[in-house]
Amino acid sequence: MSQFWSPLVKTLTPYVPGEQPKLTNLIKLNTNENPYGPSPKVLQAMQGELADTLRLYPDPNGDHLKAAIAAYHGVDKSQVFLGNGSDEVLAHAFAALLKHDAPLLFPDISYSFYPVYCGLYGIDYRLVPLTADFAINIDDYDQPCGAIIFPNPNAPTAKLLSVEVVEALLQRHPQQVVVVDEAYIDFGGVSAISLVNRYPNLLVVQTLSKSRSLAGLRVGFAIGHADLIEALERVKNSFNSYPLDKAALAGAAASFADEAYFQQTCQSIIATRDHLSFAMTQMGFEVLPSAANFIFARHPDYDAAQLAAALRERSIIVRHFKQHRIDQFLRISIGTDKESNSLIEALQALLSS
Amino acid sequence: MSQFWSPLVKTLTPYVPGEQPKLTNLIKLNTNENPYGPSPKVLQAMQGELADTLRLYPDPNGDHLKAAIAAYHGVDKSQVFLGNGSDEVLAHAFAALLKHDAPLLFPDISYSFYPVYCGLYGIDYRLVPLTADFAINIDDYDQPCGAIIFPNPNAPTAKLLSVEVVEALLQRHPQQVVVVDEAYIDFGGVSAISLVNRYPNLLVVQTLSKSRSLAGLRVGFAIGHADLIEALERVKNSFNSYPLDKAALAGAAASFADEAYFQQTCQSIIATRDHLSFAMTQMGFEVLPSAANFIFARHPDYDAAQLAAALRERSIIVRHFKQHRIDQFLRISIGTDKESNSLIEALQALLSS
Repeated sequence: MSQFWSPLVKTLTPYVPGEQPKLTNLIKLNTNENPYGPSPKVLQAMQGELADTLRLYPDPNGDHLKAAIAAYHGVDKSQVFLGNGSDEVLAHAFAALLKHDAPLLFPDISYSFYPVYCGLYGIDYRLVPLTADFAINIDDYDQPCGAIIFPNPNAPTAKLLSVEVVEALLQRHPQQVVVVDEAYIDFGGVSAISLVNRYPNLLVVQTLSKSRSLAGLRVGFAIGHADLIEALERVKNSFNSYPLDKAALAGAAASFADEAYFQQTCQSIIATRDHLSFAMTQMGFEVLPSAANFIFARHPDYDAAQLAAALRERSIIVRHFKQHRIDQFLRISIGTDKESNSLIEALQALLSS
Repeated sequence: MSQFWSPLVKTLTPYVPGEQPKLTNLIKLNTNENPYGPSPKVLQAMQGELADTLRLYPDPNGDHLKAAIAAYHGVDKSQVFLGNGSDEVLAHAFAALLKHDAPLLFPDISYSFYPVYCGLYGIDYRLVPLTADFAINIDDYDQPCGAIIFPNPNAPTAKLLSVEVVEALLQRHPQQVVVVDEAYIDFGGVSAISLVNRYPNLLVVQTLSKSRSLAGLRVGFAIGHADLIEALERVKNSFNSYPLDKAALAGAAASFADEAYFQQTCQSIIATRDHLSFAMTQMGFEVLPSAANFIFARHPDYDAAQLAAALRERSIIVRHFKQHRIDQFLRISIGTDKESNSLIEALQALLSS
């Protein structure tokens, strides 16, 4: 702590991202990265930016990428906002749309960055407990509030709300912004983007980090009514005019031009996930139904932290949250079939020893 | 405006960056980009990141790039902060270090993003007028304040403070953070980085956008006492863990490994600038002494806005600010010799017609 710090800094509890170990030869199932690389078209498009033109600023509005996303999702370009990963999109959404007199609502078990953003922007919030089986019950959100945010599928539980239930929530809160954080929607859910033209209070946030294999590129976006997008643009243009570099803009746009690759990798991950869920259930784990590229599981007879440590000794990293209600769960990202089989073998060995 | 906006949004007046025209065949002297491309080593390093590994998150701390910058500038890695362009570094500095009970001071003619950041974070500020000859006089900063920020060289005036004068300012304000925004320092100034180990209240901000020809890559950094850096890290990690993508981290680090290229391009720009300044002075322009990659000039007999419009008709874009005290100036980025000669010819034609 220092006399030179703004008073706010002393109050912050920053987010702690999942470990990015510098060791190689690890089976890294801890940060929900895609086990498959990005489409070759992405690399080709980025290649085109490795040139003298890097001396020039990128398009501050990212018009080309906005147009690609708008066309892909069937919305107008004015309904698309871009950011440096969905984390930056979320940060701007908290500042631009989620700070009101009444408290912001989000699930007690959810993306752990949400309370951090609230700390940064001085947003009053109230946690809404998940049900006993770790689901979001929209009845629990029938209370006075300034806005609502939740991930769908939820993280780290992996559980999905149907788009019909999301719509019911929107109908109950016509005066409040509802942000649906769809980082994992492409692994089995139906996006709420289809609702944005009917619900001016809906903002959907997505990322290219998971289903499009581009965690290393830092691109996220939001889709909603143009009025909501304008609020995000105003905050963004008061913070940093050019959050996306030329290579990121080009690579991201190209990703939306390779639907076959996208579908194929998503389907592979879903198949691996379902196989892993089945195998772990057979071993006695309780595996929550997952619509994400990770599963959330606990075993009645084995301590989660000890299991995570034992897996790490076998060079497999999974994520364990020391948090009330979920400290007996492991969050396991879906890898390749080979990685998944290594995990299954390691768990079988641990559980029989 | 919308009922869904956070109240803050209604009050914001976002920054307007210089135009990035989509037309080609323009002589673009309006956003202070480097006329030379980045070092080939930068492109080679980025090339190495165009791979399947883009599926993985980048190092959230950017340790490799921090080490490269620390080694280059002779400081410890704990004294280096990284951001998505120096605009993001500045944004975090405003939040983390420049919001205090007493007002922030900065020059009345300066980087026009400063008041925007103040609006975003609710920072009280006071403008300190430049002298009649558009210089910063540190005596004018002898007043109660919470912190001080200024560009050196100043923008858009291009005028430099010597490092001795910067040190005198630091000595007069031991209880306040002083941020020196050195976006243009490599074109003839001496950096205040040499002072950071003696002045715990000094933060120096630099960018790779100008002297390292990487405006398209979005990398900036700050150097200061580790306590100041910690404040920036806390805010950054409450906002976005991974602001720099893998290609940007690798390219930026490689830039510091090609000193010969860096020196050569900076010297070329300085030579072109001095030639352009001389030629324009010959034409009757008043050209402020420049230590930047742009000049700031006015002509007693010609209106600046009209000159800018007439140049644009000849496919040359320069920047004109409709702002009190400087609305008769043009800010002209330094291009190649060929671009500079085209500008000189165009001005000669305009002034003789």
